Amino acid sequence: AEIKKIAVVAGDGIGPEVVAEAIKVMRKTEELFGLQFEFEHGLFGGIAIDERGTPLPQDTLDMCKGSDAVLLGAVGGPKWDNNPKELRPETGLLGIRKALGLFSNIRPAVVFDCLKDASTLKPEVLEGTDLIVIRELTGGIYFGEKFRREGAHGQEAIDTCVYNVAEIERIVRQGFEVAQKRSKRLASVDKANVLETSRLWRETVNRIAPEYPDVELEHVLVDNCAMQLLRRPSSFDVIVTENMFGDILSDEAAMLTGSIGMLSSASLGEGSFGLYEPVHGSAPDIAGQGIANPIATILSVALMYRLTFGYEEAATAIETAVKNVLDAGHRTGDIAVDKSKAIGTTAMGDLIVAAI
Amino acid sequence: AEIKKIAVVAGDGIGPEVVAEAIKVMRKTEELFGLQFEFEHGLFGGIAIDERGTPLPQDTLDMCKGSDAVLLGAVGGPKWDNNPKELRPETGLLGIRKALGLFSNIRPAVVFDCLKDASTLKPEVLEGTDLIVIRELTGGIYFGEKFRREGAHGQEAIDTCVYNVAEIERIVRQGFEVAQKRSKRLASVDKANVLETSRLWRETVNRIAPEYPDVELEHVLVDNCAMQLLRRPSSFDVIVTENMFGDILSDEAAMLTGSIGMLSSASLGEGSFGLYEPVHGSAPDIAGQGIANPIATILSVALMYRLTFGYEEAATAIETAVKNVLDAGHRTGDIAVDKSKAIGTTAMGDLIVAAI
Ligand SMILES: CC(C)[C@H](C(=O)O)[C@@H](O)C(=O)O
Ligand SMILES: CC(C)[C@H](C(=O)O)[C@@H](O)C(=O)O
Repeated sequence: AEIKKIAVVAGDGIGPEVVAEAIKVMRKTEELFGLQFEFEHGLFGGIAIDERGTPLPQDTLDMCKGSDAVLLGAVGGPKWDNNPKELRPETGLLGIRKALGLFSNIRPAVVFDCLKDASTLKPEVLEGTDLIVIRELTGGIYFGEKFRREGAHGQEAIDTCVYNVAEIERIVRQGFEVAQKRSKRLASVDKANVLETSRLWRETVNRIAPEYPDVELEHVLVDNCAMQLLRRPSSFDVIVTENMFGDILSDEAAMLTGSIGMLSSASLGEGSFGLYEPVHGSAPDIAGQGIANPIATILSVALMYRLTFGYEEAATAIETAVKNVLDAGHRTGDIAVDKSKAIGTTAMGDLIVAAI
Repeated sequence: AEIKKIAVVAGDGIGPEVVAEAIKVMRKTEELFGLQFEFEHGLFGGIAIDERGTPLPQDTLDMCKGSDAVLLGAVGGPKWDNNPKELRPETGLLGIRKALGLFSNIRPAVVFDCLKDASTLKPEVLEGTDLIVIRELTGGIYFGEKFRREGAHGQEAIDTCVYNVAEIERIVRQGFEVAQKRSKRLASVDKANVLETSRLWRETVNRIAPEYPDVELEHVLVDNCAMQLLRRPSSFDVIVTENMFGDILSDEAAMLTGSIGMLSSASLGEGSFGLYEPVHGSAPDIAGQGIANPIATILSVALMYRLTFGYEEAATAIETAVKNVLDAGHRTGDIAVDKSKAIGTTAMGDLIVAAI
């Protein structure tokens, strides 16, 4: 196959450790499926702040722009938490999303058999839960004008939430399209009883809905959605929502599966380009110990194969390998019941590579 | 005791039914505790739209302003869902909050012994959960300027989130004060890594925190809070947050207790004035059938006694009566395990009145 360029931004904490295993998996699929990857590494997040004085150096951004897909580890840590805004890892994250036009964040929330008991939800409630949250990622209150001013009652802070029809339409269409490939149910989440942006959102959803007659659409208010995710998680298929609501609901959905250490994510723009990363964070407390769970990152590679490259067979092979290794009882510390039998990051990566 | 004026806005759906039981309870406490109430009724919500062409008629508002406390049932229903904004029940709700200066919404999320199993969370996770969400209610993105305009990419909608230091300080102080009376733990929830309003919020919290040295303070990002509520609900004591985040998190917290039909709420302004209402909605599907559960509204009266009037003894008497009636096995349909043994709204009200 054509050589695909992968920009690797491993980031902070356990980022480099889990990314290394994901790359091993990619190398293995090169042999087996006749794929070819070229990896380039760039500084990003806290480490970029330390070494370059900015969380998103221009050469890292250029490298990403010149690539076919980006593999991200994780960013952040207490070291940078009290930095001014421009010197914070999250600012790099927001910057890379905007600069690469990654308007769609796709987060599958699935339950792993071996982790059913890790959820705080009752197993019978969780049964059959398999949903995807599609979050708008480059608009809304995250990117609107923000400032301070002196007001009549002391200092005031302002954030602006802005959405235009085109921004809403492209993410909502993606929601419908993903739903069409799954169980054909789409929940559009907004706060149309209060927000003007939500009213425009809902009008737009209703306007394009007739083009997807096979998809069953429901409008859910964000507060109600936060409740329904708890009450009937398995009734959701695809959830599409704006940036801030998606931030909250995708984390709630991830947590209720009990599988947060295992969940992958994709951030997509126009065309097939995408950025792939595990949902979990940089876990500074266990960084450098070789005990982090690489599965979420490895599953993010499967997402990349499927969504960016159309390597369906190789994607499925990775997912099956992960499943088989788990079924055989292998566990990293975070998901082990008997912690004394836990294996390390590299061992887990090796087992998955061997199982492909 | 001095005569207290209670403005009653029963609203729509089951509102009038549950409010009637709450008033019966108040009458009973008049005799027993030497209290005196004068009730005035006003139109509000959908019924006010139907009869007066506005969800919040001026005379209703004047009546509330002239009262010592407001007892609200519930508003809304499918009948008005597609109305233009000015003719929607929610608009009345937002209007009354603003007009009465009710900047603080207090929502206890407690687990009722008899409803432990109704939660979708595992009992061992829920064990000991007893938290209060304090939500800022008259600021933020709910009340900032909202408008549409033509932009380069079609129509645009804008919502503005605004907070000034004074608004943040008064709600946060209330958080600290409520925490001081409880387990002395306060979680302040924001999105300071993204929003300017959240950064001002966090600065303000940190500035006044030294005045409450006995309270243990943690800052929690809103997405993380949505997760932690699921993972460790019992570790929270008091949560204080801004309007939009509070809307989402208070509903999530209510749902995880499994007791949503039983939860009360208070909305407070400066001084002792307050508006009290059940957390549940107007339940149009069961309205008029005499089967609604009046307990949340009755418990809202207990909150009113405690927070507005300082009638501690009578408040406790109501709460104890509710507990005793439940312990004796009486249930309305929504909380009955054996639905055939369920009792109606009036019967439940009578039992509680008798138990006081
Ligand atoms: C770190 C933060 C800026 C980011 C966000 O809010 O988008 C994170 O929570 C996420 O969901 O990727
Ligand atoms: C009906 C709606 C406007 C309201 C809100 O969002 O505040 C409701 O959800 C609530 O929490 O009281």
